Amino acid sequence: MADDAAVRTGSQPVLSMQEAILRLQTYWAGHGCVIAQPFNTEVGAGTMNPATLLSVLGPEPWRVAYVEPSVRPDDSRYGENPNRLQTHTQFQVVIKPEPGNPQQLYLGSLAALGIDLDAHDVRFVEDNWTQPAIGAWGLGWEVWLDGMEITQFTYFQQVGGQNLDPIPVEITYGLERILMAVQKVTHFKNLVYAPGITYGEFLGQSEYEMSRYYLDDADIAATRTLLDTYSREADRLIEHRLPIPAHSFVLKSSHAFNVLDARGAISTTERATWFQTMRRQARSVATLWTELRAEAEHPRGIAEPLPPALPAVDPAELPAAGLLVFEIGTEELPPTVVDGTAAVVEQELTRLLAGTELAHGQMRVDATPRRITVQIADIAAREPDGTQLHRGPKTVAAYTADGAPTRALLGFLDARHASEDDIVRIQANGSEYVAVQTIRRGRVAADVLTGILSQLVVGLRADKNMRWNDPILNFSRPIRRLLALLDRTVLPVTAGALAADRITHGHRRTPHSGINITSATDYTATLRREGILLDRGERRAAVTSAAVGLAAAHDGAIDTEAEAALIDEITNLVESPIGILGTFDAEYLRLPEQILTTVMRKHQRYLPVRRADGELLPLFITLANGACDTDVVREGNENVLRARFEDATYFWKTDLRTTPDQFRSRLTALTFETRLGSMSDRSERIAALSRKLATRIDLPADDSRTLERAGALVKFDLATQMVIEMTSLAGTMAREYARRSGESDPVAEALFEAELPRHHADRLPESLPGALLALGDRFDLLVAMLAIGAKFTGTSDPFGLRRAALGIVRILRAQPELSNLTFRDGLTAAADALREQGIAVDDAVLDTAEELLITRYEQRLRDEGVPVLLIEAVRPSAGSPYRADRLRAEVEQARELVDREFAEIVEGLQRISRILPPGTSPSFDSEMLTKPAERNLITALNNLDTSRDRPFAVWAGSTQPLVRALRAFFEEILVMDEDLAVRTARLGLLSGVLHTAPPAIDWKSLHQLRSGV
Amino acid sequence: MADDAAVRTGSQPVLSMQEAILRLQTYWAGHGCVIAQPFNTEVGAGTMNPATLLSVLGPEPWRVAYVEPSVRPDDSRYGENPNRLQTHTQFQVVIKPEPGNPQQLYLGSLAALGIDLDAHDVRFVEDNWTQPAIGAWGLGWEVWLDGMEITQFTYFQQVGGQNLDPIPVEITYGLERILMAVQKVTHFKNLVYAPGITYGEFLGQSEYEMSRYYLDDADIAATRTLLDTYSREADRLIEHRLPIPAHSFVLKSSHAFNVLDARGAISTTERATWFQTMRRQARSVATLWTELRAEAEHPRGIAEPLPPALPAVDPAELPAAGLLVFEIGTEELPPTVVDGTAAVVEQELTRLLAGTELAHGQMRVDATPRRITVQIADIAAREPDGTQLHRGPKTVAAYTADGAPTRALLGFLDARHASEDDIVRIQANGSEYVAVQTIRRGRVAADVLTGILSQLVVGLRADKNMRWNDPILNFSRPIRRLLALLDRTVLPVTAGALAADRITHGHRRTPHSGINITSATDYTATLRREGILLDRGERRAAVTSAAVGLAAAHDGAIDTEAEAALIDEITNLVESPIGILGTFDAEYLRLPEQILTTVMRKHQRYLPVRRADGELLPLFITLANGACDTDVVREGNENVLRARFEDATYFWKTDLRTTPDQFRSRLTALTFETRLGSMSDRSERIAALSRKLATRIDLPADDSRTLERAGALVKFDLATQMVIEMTSLAGTMAREYARRSGESDPVAEALFEAELPRHHADRLPESLPGALLALGDRFDLLVAMLAIGAKFTGTSDPFGLRRAALGIVRILRAQPELSNLTFRDGLTAAADALREQGIAVDDAVLDTAEELLITRYEQRLRDEGVPVLLIEAVRPSAGSPYRADRLRAEVEQARELVDREFAEIVEGLQRISRILPPGTSPSFDSEMLTKPAERNLITALNNLDTSRDRPFAVWAGSTQPLVRALRAFFEEILVMDEDLAVRTARLGLLSGVLHTAPPAIDWKSLHQLRSGV
Repeated sequence: MADDAAVRTGSQPVLSMQEAILRLQTYWAGHGCVIAQPFNTEVGAGTMNPATLLSVLGPEPWRVAYVEPSVRPDDSRYGENPNRLQTHTQFQVVIKPEPGNPQQLYLGSLAALGIDLDAHDVRFVEDNWTQPAIGAWGLGWEVWLDGMEITQFTYFQQVGGQNLDPIPVEITYGLERILMAVQKVTHFKNLVYAPGITYGEFLGQSEYEMSRYYLDDADIAATRTLLDTYSREADRLIEHRLPIPAHSFVLKSSHAFNVLDARGAISTTERATWFQTMRRQARSVATLWTELRAEAEHPRGIAEPLPPALPAVDPAELPAAGLLVFEIGTEELPPTVVDGTAAVVEQELTRLLAGTELAHGQMRVDATPRRITVQIADIAAREPDGTQLHRGPKTVAAYTADGAPTRALLGFLDARHASEDDIVRIQANGSEYVAVQTIRRGRVAADVLTGILSQLVVGLRADKNMRWNDPILNFSRPIRRLLALLDRTVLPVTAGALAADRITHGHRRTPHSGINITSATDYTATLRREGILLDRGERRAAVTSAAVGLAAAHDGAIDTEAEAALIDEITNLVESPIGILGTFDAEYLRLPEQILTTVMRKHQRYLPVRRADGELLPLFITLANGACDTDVVREGNENVLRARFEDATYFWKTDLRTTPDQFRSRLTALTFETRLGSMSDRSERIAALSRKLATRIDLPADDSRTLERAGALVKFDLATQMVIEMTSLAGTMAREYARRSGESDPVAEALFEAELPRHHADRLPESLPGALLALGDRFDLLVAMLAIGAKFTGTSDPFGLRRAALGIVRILRAQPELSNLTFRDGLTAAADALREQGIAVDDAVLDTAEELLITRYEQRLRDEGVPVLLIEAVRPSAGSPYRADRLRAEVEQARELVDREFAEIVEGLQRISRILPPGTSPSFDSEMLTKPAERNLITALNNLDTSRDRPFAVWAGSTQPLVRALRAFFEEILVMDEDLAVRTARLGLLSGVLHTAPPAIDWKSLHQLRSGV
Repeated sequence: MADDAAVRTGSQPVLSMQEAILRLQTYWAGHGCVIAQPFNTEVGAGTMNPATLLSVLGPEPWRVAYVEPSVRPDDSRYGENPNRLQTHTQFQVVIKPEPGNPQQLYLGSLAALGIDLDAHDVRFVEDNWTQPAIGAWGLGWEVWLDGMEITQFTYFQQVGGQNLDPIPVEITYGLERILMAVQKVTHFKNLVYAPGITYGEFLGQSEYEMSRYYLDDADIAATRTLLDTYSREADRLIEHRLPIPAHSFVLKSSHAFNVLDARGAISTTERATWFQTMRRQARSVATLWTELRAEAEHPRGIAEPLPPALPAVDPAELPAAGLLVFEIGTEELPPTVVDGTAAVVEQELTRLLAGTELAHGQMRVDATPRRITVQIADIAAREPDGTQLHRGPKTVAAYTADGAPTRALLGFLDARHASEDDIVRIQANGSEYVAVQTIRRGRVAADVLTGILSQLVVGLRADKNMRWNDPILNFSRPIRRLLALLDRTVLPVTAGALAADRITHGHRRTPHSGINITSATDYTATLRREGILLDRGERRAAVTSAAVGLAAAHDGAIDTEAEAALIDEITNLVESPIGILGTFDAEYLRLPEQILTTVMRKHQRYLPVRRADGELLPLFITLANGACDTDVVREGNENVLRARFEDATYFWKTDLRTTPDQFRSRLTALTFETRLGSMSDRSERIAALSRKLATRIDLPADDSRTLERAGALVKFDLATQMVIEMTSLAGTMAREYARRSGESDPVAEALFEAELPRHHADRLPESLPGALLALGDRFDLLVAMLAIGAKFTGTSDPFGLRRAALGIVRILRAQPELSNLTFRDGLTAAADALREQGIAVDDAVLDTAEELLITRYEQRLRDEGVPVLLIEAVRPSAGSPYRADRLRAEVEQARELVDREFAEIVEGLQRISRILPPGTSPSFDSEMLTKPAERNLITALNNLDTSRDRPFAVWAGSTQPLVRALRAFFEEILVMDEDLAVRTARLGLLSGVLHTAPPAIDWKSLHQLRSGV
């Protein structure tokens, strides 16, 4: 506060909040935007103003900018939290169609605010937007200014359930945040709102009073009445085909809902019902608006779609060879896309080139957030010429009896521009044909490559793709430019609206952003001069060494192994990693470490710095993208981190005022899923399910008590502010808060372990109560979601079912104490728990779930390198993965120990299993089996050790006599005797043999496996 | 529309709506205003935004400007009306304390919008603001741009029932209107909102749909639920001491109320209740806010009051004489104040000068809207010196026995700085005293005048006064400057924060607005050079001649007599009248003339132009204030008039779709007064009352039928749109609409006449039904308002009771057919009608009302020059003014005919009335009266013509014998004889004499009148 005051009274005139607004209005008006007004009912975001929400629909072009004071009742903090306000000021820009250069326009607006883009680190960090309540989603980024999120930048794809066409871009500035950064104040109240007046002086009382209203004083019954009334009016107005007033009432109901929510008054059923209602209404409003605009013949006109680009020259006319550089310039790709796309491009290009005859050298594909670069050395000038044989009529049909060419032959020759001299004779399909051979001229390299590269770009896809203002292209983020140079020649590659040229781009902030490349051979050096590291490995090394070096200089270290995933992510967030070390107040180290590291890693992508003993230091390392004023960027990032730690401290302190039991009871207010009740219902099911599973194993009394208590609290931390803010701390916070409220260590640990594993590489529960709760969690999720018809397709797993399944597999495989538990046990228990809550579970669901679990298990085995046939061989045991693992181990062991015999017994058993009709009893009438081979086999069978639980290898090792007897049996005896009685006895004998073998093995697979070896 | 399109596609870039907003924001930000955002709930005006409504309270300084889309559901027109929108855009500025030059700042903002102040006619036309619903009022103007109201400009005095200190000024721009004028478009939809997009394209659909919602589709039950809920929340939040959320709910309830109102769903009782509730809540919110700001120690600081100005020099040191010019520069005074103040200033200054010895010549006082100028010729250099005698001790105490001065004498001399030589001896109270004489030096003129002029300004008052940012002054509008020149010397006059100088001002628009006056003698010529006509007569003549001349040039005429009041008003609206003649589409002449002239006169202060036969021409004359571009001003005024006529046409056509009976039934929805029911109730009472009065006169059958029908409809036109818009057309529209719907002419005429007289000079009803209804209207008003305790003080008549009373007096005096009706008849009938509706009327109310009526009647007589004593003489008849008039006429006639006898009989009767104990019976025992004088008097009495209804003069002429007998009686007889029987008989005789005289005359007054003659 003292600092803030010093800044304010300093001699430097600061950019006031209102001046910032005026500049943004002027800037965007200058770029063709209508300056609209905030909406005159409470909205949660500028998006909800009809100037955005309705105007983005349909074909009319639209450019608008406006301030929107956005009300979020549950962000009420009485004005005490430095960064959080119940009303924060958004500046909203919508441009439809997106103008092709919205990022540049946006950066221009920052410059208009006086933000020195050369000094600051401005980044576009993946952040997608989805609002199921209004059937809307889009792809884009949050924009970071020195680590602070100052803007949401989104290409809307769908709104109100409608695919948008043309695609609008929405830019939403968080004005308080931007101004706090620019003015360098640490509490919003100290912002200079206008010369001589602070934000607090202007709006402080309102912030306090509205917080009071939202958190404490709003009347619940009255607000519920409002909610009901608004919603009914919205429905009525939809019926009257009046989308604008209807929308206004949807907004009012949404606000009333938020007020009730902030007052903690929304029950599970209410929440579910209202979300459904609002979604339906939002869709109806959108549909109505679209229809009415069409009826009104689109008063704002119709946006012209961009035409596809046409090649400037005929590539066939371009002689060139040597190095090919092809750069696909994109807007910031999500880090996960960067690597994936490089691989895809390499693969696709290899495939496409393979379809040509063009000779070429080494190919390399690099990807950064803003470009995908292909370089192929030694491109030949052209494809080699080739010959082609064209078959004509059969010889007998080509000539008349007197050897003159028939009309068929003449026609053929004519079509091929050939003469009789060119004719050769060939054999085909057992007949002789006439044929002519033509020379196929190889295409010039430019021709070949232009086509291929165009195809490449047009076909480029990521897991999640978007549309932008392009007639054809479709990718993770907009592709904005192409550079295609074969040696010194620009290849006229076109894709969608784009045509390639010889211009690459450095960092956006550099004034000479567009750089002319004379020759492909200059490309790499040019980018290097710009500081752009194309090579992923090099970039990763640069990130690591910068971080490690900075840490070392402050007697700290980076745990590069533990941070590998984060370093990978950072590597794909920057093109020119510049390490910057910042500090934070050591006071914050009093918070649990996981909170601090979660904030640093997940929210800020900062690398934590530790002492030699692993303790955190009050330091962090961020990687800026390219040259900047490191002092400025450091200070900005430090401010952001302070604000976040301040928030976390607030949550920590607030949460500690509430007991786990109290939090647990608040889970009733958190919907899990409409049809599946609240999080409290789910917690109950998890506890019940875990108890039931516990009865199937030999759980020690201590663990029983732990399970009982932990089950009563499980998932309580979902109601804590900390977890609401940082979901990844679920479990971690449960343990912390439980400990601090006096729960025993085992209970605290079990509550933590209940959340494990959180991802595919995460640790597993170690305690039995933890493991049982974790299983309970996952079995419940699986059965519950499948019971309500959740689907999972090839690539998407929106409900985390695959992850849950894998968690179950991993836990069951890891704990010998759980070896008695089968998938089916867990699934049945889950179904029971659900049914006890009145939720119907079809039995088929259990089959599906079991199949999913087995598939996961098998996939896991495949990933571990287990041969497929061996996996299939133990498949009959897979419902209990621990046992299946043991069996598989024994089989493998047996394979090594008793190789030959093993092979034979497997073969024999496989043969038996093949001929035995299903359900054949292992009993037989030995009177009927009189032949020596039959008697020998009976003897061998009777001599066998049939004790249960003998290891597979022991069994296998003991089968030598049986193997020999069986071999002789099959050599000498025809099982399928015509005499039914004999046949039945023989089959019974074989069944007996099969029954002595360990159960739950697919002998057929094992046999194939043996054969294959 | 076609024109509008042409303008838009023209090559001139127009000022777009959004550019205008940006400019205003930038301009006002540059003048220290915080730029706030519109409120996020529906408000009817920018005033309701807490940035105005709450922030004007208390001592904190505040400057703010913002856009406010203001919602008026009943202005919904589906976007069809060119000038009327359910949401119009206000731009609101509040500066507290008002900055001393808000008009200049405002004009600067117009210039910032590119409005050429030299070309246009910008005027500040009196318009005060009062909003009882929030306990608020202020004084100010509407600002006219070429006749169009573009801004409301108000000095707030009270808000939420609190006196404001400091005083804020509120400037509210109507952006659509300003922009329509600037862009020269005639339909709001065609406004260029932003480059390339019109208002209609941007907001047209919203305008249509919200109109549909407000007028047709809002659910009444649901909205009522909202209203109830909002209001209860407001109350609760007030209890919780949260003024901001409470205010927000007051606004929401107000909007819900407006929606219900627009849907025609507000019943009388509801309206009354809600207004009361909102008023109470608004006051509570204001009080709370003020308390909380004080508790918070006024975060925005405390405004420093302006210090009173100190004189720059000692006026006693300034030698000067000759012409005095004193100019009090004001902001635009209301026309009624201009003349009144000139008179007051002249009177007050005369009084003040009379208290001095300063010799001076002729004084003249002129007043214009912007200045009050005093000029006094031949001011002497100083007051003459005078002498003063100071009395000392009695001579006997002044000297010792030996003639030496006593200590008393020496002390006296010492105190007077005198020696024994100065002593003179004087007589007083019968004793001799010693005394000394001193010279009293006359003060210099500057000294005398400075004091007087300061007193004059400080004491200046109008009927309705305001405060502004001045420590002392208080006047109709702010006084902003003083010029005080005695010859060439500035007199150091101070008043409040003002100090006089030698600078006068021309028109505000002229760049050299401040003009230095070297010598007082230059003053008049300087102003004349500026075109400013100080002299009212000259200004009026200029107005008239300009108008008459322009009309004549277009073969038209101005009815200067009929328009005298308007010409008077115009004379006080301008300093330099510039006549401009405009035209309008002759199509509009199809509307009833009264509509057109009402619009022209009342709304626009235009003079209608007529043909020789009196028919209206499609022309009007406006008087601009000072030089301007007459084409620009004409066009602007023509546009305004077209828009107003367009509106009127719309109302006319709409109203004609509804019958008078339907309108009459809608009166139930119009509250008359909370406790007095709806306008329908009142209409019923008027009808009943009129019928009752009709029974007391001999009403012909035709008239009875007319009264019956007209009574059933009376006041129906209050529900018509036309009258709602132009209340002065009440009655006029009733007649027009009644005729057009087939009512008979007498009924139509009676409905019109029911409203007569509308003001003190208005015509009276001519038909009996009309007169009876008019009486019914006024008796009801009087009794009803007094019954609920309405008060009327010396100057204020908020309920129009005095006007109603005068109307009754005028009607009753005018109609012989009504001569039987007394005030009491009407009042009793009114009370009966009220009681029939269950409204209590105390009998004392009737006395008060009767007294008011008699007072009005007597005032009227005084105004007509009737001697006060004659008025008093007929006072006993005043309860029936028609008869009182007749009696008075007879008395006057008698005075002329029989002067001497008349005097004697009056004297005699007065003498009798003086000695007769009240209630003395006119009978006597003649046995007891034996003296000749007694017998003679009895004879004379018996001979008198005592027939009733003889005219007063006849009676007076016949009294000669009685007069003589009475004279003798009084000379010879002692009435008060000791013998009680004799005395009783004598008093009885005299009482008999008095009883023969016409009743209802106050003989004492008549006697005094005679004596005075």
